[in-house]
Amino acid sequence: MFQLVLLRHGESEWNRENRFTGWTDVGLTERGTGEAAEAGREMRRAGMVFDVAYTSVLKRAIKTLWIVMEEMDRMWVPVFRSWRLNERHYGALQGLNKAETVARHGMEQVQLWRRSYDVTPPALTADDPRFPGNDPRYADLSADRLPLTECLKDTVERFMPYWRETIAPDVLAGRRVLITAHGNSLRALVMYLDGMSPEEILAMNIPTGIPQVYELAADLKPIRRYYLGDPDKVAQATSAVAGQLEKKGG
Amino acid sequence: MFQLVLLRHGESEWNRENRFTGWTDVGLTERGTGEAAEAGREMRRAGMVFDVAYTSVLKRAIKTLWIVMEEMDRMWVPVFRSWRLNERHYGALQGLNKAETVARHGMEQVQLWRRSYDVTPPALTADDPRFPGNDPRYADLSADRLPLTECLKDTVERFMPYWRETIAPDVLAGRRVLITAHGNSLRALVMYLDGMSPEEILAMNIPTGIPQVYELAADLKPIRRYYLGDPDKVAQATSAVAGQLEKKGG
Repeated sequence: MFQLVLLRHGESEWNRENRFTGWTDVGLTERGTGEAAEAGREMRRAGMVFDVAYTSVLKRAIKTLWIVMEEMDRMWVPVFRSWRLNERHYGALQGLNKAETVARHGMEQVQLWRRSYDVTPPALTADDPRFPGNDPRYADLSADRLPLTECLKDTVERFMPYWRETIAPDVLAGRRVLITAHGNSLRALVMYLDGMSPEEILAMNIPTGIPQVYELAADLKPIRRYYLGDPDKVAQATSAVAGQLEKKGG
Repeated sequence: MFQLVLLRHGESEWNRENRFTGWTDVGLTERGTGEAAEAGREMRRAGMVFDVAYTSVLKRAIKTLWIVMEEMDRMWVPVFRSWRLNERHYGALQGLNKAETVARHGMEQVQLWRRSYDVTPPALTADDPRFPGNDPRYADLSADRLPLTECLKDTVERFMPYWRETIAPDVLAGRRVLITAHGNSLRALVMYLDGMSPEEILAMNIPTGIPQVYELAADLKPIRRYYLGDPDKVAQATSAVAGQLEKKGG
């Protein structure tokens, strides 16, 4: 039996402001750091232990991981960061308030961008300051890897090679793996592990700050899958994600 | 020209209590986290940038690095942890108050343990709870690598292969390297880089929380070497290390 735990970062500054974030590197709010600390305590109370951790190159996921490692007194565990675990790139919507975007483009269009598998939001241009090619953390990526926008399908396609070639071998070597990442990069993995259709994964909300434990067989098929923590809190966290488009951002 | 920056962690709980720490995994004090933050701001103000960071598997060095990365807004940089960057193992002295140890063994003996190159402090036994073989972070080390005690020569001998095989190639590849570590593992490196004799390195105190910048030639010989920050503060930090045996621990 192999163990894998997924954790979506806690509330970020732009979650609070209800903006499309994508690859924008915003920090956690105080509430977000509290969510991360609570996740760490929850895992420690459950007697969980990690041998290695994976995260994105975005600080809201990295900081979530750091807080967890500190709460679990496991700061010495190796950590690997990859752009392949980044949030879905939201193209030219990055920075826009979600409620304003709905007012401008209509709910139907915005729902399509958010909840379809293969429809991409408007693309950035390469001269946009938001273009990842302007950021030194992506300096080693070839031009065809640098997204101008992504649909969930694109996120799945750039995440899966990293799972197959890097994370899965670690799991199969018996290492207890923790992944702290984002709503859509974690969706990519959950879709694969649970054999979901695009429709099923799109209907599924991954709550922030709630550790999601997978017990996997030798073929990496899930034997058991559960959230750690109080079921009411889990349900509340899941429905909070679903309500974002209605919420007025700050 | 290649760039390398060394940073010794800020004040730890046992620095404050004036205890021999070695491989004991104690945290930073509030003052220690402040020192780390100031080091990070100092580097940011100087326009320094890092491509990769190395640290030990001890939380006082790891936390120092995390604080620096956050201050410099560079949390995405790859980090490698190794036991080879750990502090010198202080054997059976670990946990003892330095002033008490002086009272028990005499200043001359304690000075010999602290300031000789090849005299080891009393060794742990393998059934001691402090023995590194009892700690999961050293589970991959073979028995002959697990120290029961170390003199500075031992620390140099286990640090240098990691420098040669892992860190130096990164420097030579043009990556700007930051190392956050400990008084004696950094001494090992400074001794090598500056071609010092054991006597010279033993007379040299590496201050906490002050970034030490090396500009290196293609043969990794130093072209220039300087501390970042206010010279008075540097001098003060250096003399604080020299005065430890006289200080009464808390």
